[in-house]
Amino acid sequence: MNPVKIGICGLGTVGKGTFDVLTRNGEEIAGRAGCNIVVSHIGARRGADISGVNVSTDIFAVADDPEIHILVELIGGTTVAKDLVLQAIANGKHIVTANKALIAEHGNEIFAAASEKGVSVAFEAAVAGGIPIIKAIREGLSANRIEWLAGIINGTGNFILTEMREKGRDFDDVLKEAQELGYAEADPTFDVEGIDAAHKLVILASIAFGIPLQFDKAYTEGITKISTEDVEYAEQLGYRIKHLGVARKNGKGVELRVHPTMIPEKRLIANVNGVMNAVLVKGDAVGPTLYYGAGAGAEPTASAVVADIVDVARTLSAEPKHRVPYLAFQNDAMNDTPILPIDEVETAYYLRMSAEDKPGVLSEVAQILSNAGISIEAIIQKEPAEGQDHVSLIILTSRAIEKNLDQATDSIEALDSIAGEVTRIRVESLAG
Amino acid sequence: MNPVKIGICGLGTVGKGTFDVLTRNGEEIAGRAGCNIVVSHIGARRGADISGVNVSTDIFAVADDPEIHILVELIGGTTVAKDLVLQAIANGKHIVTANKALIAEHGNEIFAAASEKGVSVAFEAAVAGGIPIIKAIREGLSANRIEWLAGIINGTGNFILTEMREKGRDFDDVLKEAQELGYAEADPTFDVEGIDAAHKLVILASIAFGIPLQFDKAYTEGITKISTEDVEYAEQLGYRIKHLGVARKNGKGVELRVHPTMIPEKRLIANVNGVMNAVLVKGDAVGPTLYYGAGAGAEPTASAVVADIVDVARTLSAEPKHRVPYLAFQNDAMNDTPILPIDEVETAYYLRMSAEDKPGVLSEVAQILSNAGISIEAIIQKEPAEGQDHVSLIILTSRAIEKNLDQATDSIEALDSIAGEVTRIRVESLAG
Repeated sequence: MNPVKIGICGLGTVGKGTFDVLTRNGEEIAGRAGCNIVVSHIGARRGADISGVNVSTDIFAVADDPEIHILVELIGGTTVAKDLVLQAIANGKHIVTANKALIAEHGNEIFAAASEKGVSVAFEAAVAGGIPIIKAIREGLSANRIEWLAGIINGTGNFILTEMREKGRDFDDVLKEAQELGYAEADPTFDVEGIDAAHKLVILASIAFGIPLQFDKAYTEGITKISTEDVEYAEQLGYRIKHLGVARKNGKGVELRVHPTMIPEKRLIANVNGVMNAVLVKGDAVGPTLYYGAGAGAEPTASAVVADIVDVARTLSAEPKHRVPYLAFQNDAMNDTPILPIDEVETAYYLRMSAEDKPGVLSEVAQILSNAGISIEAIIQKEPAEGQDHVSLIILTSRAIEKNLDQATDSIEALDSIAGEVTRIRVESLAG
Repeated sequence: MNPVKIGICGLGTVGKGTFDVLTRNGEEIAGRAGCNIVVSHIGARRGADISGVNVSTDIFAVADDPEIHILVELIGGTTVAKDLVLQAIANGKHIVTANKALIAEHGNEIFAAASEKGVSVAFEAAVAGGIPIIKAIREGLSANRIEWLAGIINGTGNFILTEMREKGRDFDDVLKEAQELGYAEADPTFDVEGIDAAHKLVILASIAFGIPLQFDKAYTEGITKISTEDVEYAEQLGYRIKHLGVARKNGKGVELRVHPTMIPEKRLIANVNGVMNAVLVKGDAVGPTLYYGAGAGAEPTASAVVADIVDVARTLSAEPKHRVPYLAFQNDAMNDTPILPIDEVETAYYLRMSAEDKPGVLSEVAQILSNAGISIEAIIQKEPAEGQDHVSLIILTSRAIEKNLDQATDSIEALDSIAGEVTRIRVESLAG
């Protein structure tokens, strides 16, 4: 098929970037794909004036265009986008999308429809922008039982934590700058509360473990409560705080969780700073591998969108069953390993509490932890500031089941000698 | 086609690892591939006793076996391996190989033969072991004009440089340990002189830039002359010394070079330690991306071999022209950009020289550099050791064309006040 004709729906940042990259690198891309890739139809609500390209303000006109082979969905959201994609699939179009929410929340339904029609649905751009992480896990590591993966998959959150560490700034201050720089939305909830990261993590977990997409089972905890104090103590203990998405398969099920995490500073992923993304994947044969790059932005995301277009263009002659499966595993090879609730997950913990400056407090706290079967790996206790009768007590624990830690924390908070809540950050060694 | 039958030639470390991974993860792999992958014939000179598998001591019997679809070449070397692969191709078999020397030195001929017969030749395991770097560049970054790439692609060399830095040990001492640990061969030339890295770099450059494989044009310089002194001065200047393979396309041609390189310590790749490998790739759309993992070893390499087998198994129904091209670009899209000789390459430089401890020497040296259009970015000059009349003078230069630096160095060495040769290490900022 030459040329392969595509329709792009949505002409925002990523849509424009995709058009630009296809235009600028057209010759190079054709040299790899073995065919010319032509944008023959654009759907944009506000219209656009691009010479030689049919532009519709009704994006569904693109899904109905008999000329196009591939519909590229870049409008975002999960309502209109879902209708658009399903209509295009019904019309026999292949789909390329950058829409993480759409895939994480409605992917199972979309893949079922696509499978029925024998068309491809490609979504490399939905996770970690330009990093070819879907391809790496789905194809590059296909020999492996994936044991776990851990990713910095939200650039805004990583920018905030990096600034807090490097410049000692506080959360609100950096968030405001991130918004001014355009890294964070006016409503930053999706980024800082971990919802965006959870969307991506759910997709990665499915292709790693052969399980259906289960966004509703993901545990998410944001970074809004991380204080500069915690960032500094982490540093003293030889750790960095990152907002990680972690998926791990253990004997009981699959852990699927996004939360602030302390990582030993000597790990490569602990040194991924600013808006950059990275995903660490541990396979049983290959060991740990890491993938790093820009997780967002017009052209990095377009890089992944166009790579998907080239992949689909190449496979236009392949029978559907010989293509790479949507979620890495063939339909009949998917499994129903359960997603574990967060209270059954085991990690180590950083605990910070405000303790009365008198003898015996540490011993009370240690006793509670010990009764819960939790040992203490490290302690920092500072002199009280002038005029203060409470001191910061920082404890690094051994690995413990979250529900045991919850109980111990409740008991610690009930002590007269402890003021307020215990701050807690999960610790992962991420050792190969 | 179910099952897909493969023949493995060579039952050394990687051959055994491949058999083990295929056996252990067989169900998982079939779940991804959509077909069972069965080892139906093994070629091993010394024979082997594996139940249910036909074993030939004549490896060419595998190439002639009408049953097998894919021949997996893991015998190494470039003479018998080449004959074996060409014979299998003539018989219509698809090829998977981990043999970097074979592809770098004879790839053009092998791909021509394979193209004629319409079969696949897959070689992910030939570069950086288990890291899916070929797939990342060839497919994951297919939207990009690749501007440059730089890789730590020899684990032995990286182990030696890491030990020298972390423990202040000298080269010969660490090399001996690497040999005892089995990281380095009894004849370590291939590793420490950069030949192994050059094989891999040549392959990466071809798939990045669409040029034929040109091993004979690669510049290689080993790490045998790196002293603990240089490692320490690099540290003081905020750098790490790594044995990098660098391929860069500029207006005049393609730089293709392996040499010790100073990299700012804040770069992620500067923190890749021990036997681990990493490749940093800069695309015009995606920006810098990095791929990290084990570059050697039985199962990491097997991970890549098996991923290639799965890829080939999946494409058995695709018409040859719709498969991923051997070198990323279609045959008629390859270009003849020349490989640049090393003296036309531009980098910055670290220079270390032994200077007489008297006034005016620094000014003489600075004058020579200035005359060659080279400026000085940083200087370290130490007090002479007791009883010494010479001091170490360390200069970090601006970027300069190598032949200009060569001339300046000659002039500096000719100065009466400079003793011996000027030690020189290229410096790359590797900024995105």
